[in-house]
Amino acid sequence: MISQAKRPITVGIIGLGLIGASLAAGLRARDVAVTLLGADHSADTTAKAKSRGLIDTVVNDPQALCEQADVLVLAVPVLSTTDVLQQLAPYLKDGSTILTDVGSVKGSLIRAVQDVFGELPTWLVPGHPIAGAEHSGVDAADPNLFDRHQVILTPHERSDLEAIEVVTSLWRDVGADIQMMTVERHDEVLAATSHLPHLLAFSLVDTLAQESEKYEIFHYAAGGFRDFTRIAASDPTMWHDIFLSNDAATLNVLEHYISHLQGLRTALRERDGETLKQVFTRAKRARDYFSSILEERSR
Amino acid sequence: MISQAKRPITVGIIGLGLIGASLAAGLRARDVAVTLLGADHSADTTAKAKSRGLIDTVVNDPQALCEQADVLVLAVPVLSTTDVLQQLAPYLKDGSTILTDVGSVKGSLIRAVQDVFGELPTWLVPGHPIAGAEHSGVDAADPNLFDRHQVILTPHERSDLEAIEVVTSLWRDVGADIQMMTVERHDEVLAATSHLPHLLAFSLVDTLAQESEKYEIFHYAAGGFRDFTRIAASDPTMWHDIFLSNDAATLNVLEHYISHLQGLRTALRERDGETLKQVFTRAKRARDYFSSILEERSR
Repeated sequence: MISQAKRPITVGIIGLGLIGASLAAGLRARDVAVTLLGADHSADTTAKAKSRGLIDTVVNDPQALCEQADVLVLAVPVLSTTDVLQQLAPYLKDGSTILTDVGSVKGSLIRAVQDVFGELPTWLVPGHPIAGAEHSGVDAADPNLFDRHQVILTPHERSDLEAIEVVTSLWRDVGADIQMMTVERHDEVLAATSHLPHLLAFSLVDTLAQESEKYEIFHYAAGGFRDFTRIAASDPTMWHDIFLSNDAATLNVLEHYISHLQGLRTALRERDGETLKQVFTRAKRARDYFSSILEERSR
Repeated sequence: MISQAKRPITVGIIGLGLIGASLAAGLRARDVAVTLLGADHSADTTAKAKSRGLIDTVVNDPQALCEQADVLVLAVPVLSTTDVLQQLAPYLKDGSTILTDVGSVKGSLIRAVQDVFGELPTWLVPGHPIAGAEHSGVDAADPNLFDRHQVILTPHERSDLEAIEVVTSLWRDVGADIQMMTVERHDEVLAATSHLPHLLAFSLVDTLAQESEKYEIFHYAAGGFRDFTRIAASDPTMWHDIFLSNDAATLNVLEHYISHLQGLRTALRERDGETLKQVFTRAKRARDYFSSILEERSR
């Protein structure tokens, strides 16, 4: 049941990893009047979530979830989405439950929904909180993970306005800033700001591993290298899934990047210091702008 | 005068930026019995270094520096090296003073020394502490900057053994681990672990700045992107100097990197998930190894 103020009364979170569990923790910490149902394929995870008070009830049954929840938040790995959608489908069809998700690729979610439902349902409001942490799983749940972070929602043309409001208020309740954009723009933006950097970091570390026997070269790397390669310690399977889900947008920005890098190679070959300095200066200006955004956000 | 224990009695530090001033601060903090002379083109900098007790005496005169110091540490920007060497040359020729430096490219130092001195002097022991910090200048001086960090020395075939020992003990006194390698290997290692990552970060930020108007895209970037691009906020002029000084080794590893990236592009195009997962898994393994080195170092 949705309240007058377009707030959900009962929220079901499917997948209690870092993102799902942090959403629950954030709602709890802010004392939002909401009943929280939690589902996870791991009994250990749901038990932890329950015993720590992150959720009120463990509900793994798809029918019960759909019947009890006003909003279902899909917080499972990108490539498990279709599976879970298929389990929910028979009970979602009446449209009394709003469905949102937290996946980092939106085009693949849309395709999965179309595969399962035929057309895009009005009660679907895809979402993606731009947040993450070094650690994962329910143990890493952080009630402030979304505080002053962006959540991108990508409603489609037929998304119900009330459903959009409800999902918006859910994320606002945990401190997030809401941005709306199209699925295509979202996947472009994430390809550029997240997926490409991960690809570059994985590629650099693997290139260096092949340059020297027994990783000898890493003994001489300094702090800047540590920061630069931190994201290459991310879960290979998760990133495999993300790249295959967002291959088109990633390929597009990767082409631009390789061209840019080839331009720098030419400048280096020709000892064209002027071009190098111009590029570095432009990049520093953009990076300084980005720092100022981050500073403002942390105030 | 060099002591029996092959320790310098008087050290002259030319250039009191982050590295030079931190070396002075480290010797002071560890109560090493040494007289410290400091030189810098900025009177403000030398005054600060003196008033904070980092150095005993300001000595900007090249002749006085060479006459008084057992060891001179050149800690000036890479492209100022030749200038300073020329000023010191008339007084260094008698060979009673050991010369070392802290530059991040060693091939260019060797060329500068050959230009000024004709051949490589026995009292030359080039060095490079693998350390840095977000801030620069005498104000950022940190007595622990080199603690458990690597200092690479690249003595040449005719370097005097006693000179090598003296420079080694100087860095050991501030807590550093000493590694010896050839000039060529040093420049390869640094091209791979430092210069290439900086080039990639500058290139990524500039590519993204060109993807979107008014830097809009940076508003959607998350923590991983911040870490990945931190080094793109480095001083453009300094990096221009470094790339022109180490162009050959950087071009070499850049070629390997572009090939590797093109391989990932092909895998993405062909939706070859197996290759992606293999590369990411290898990279994660190498990155985890690197983390373990850092952890050990911080213990």
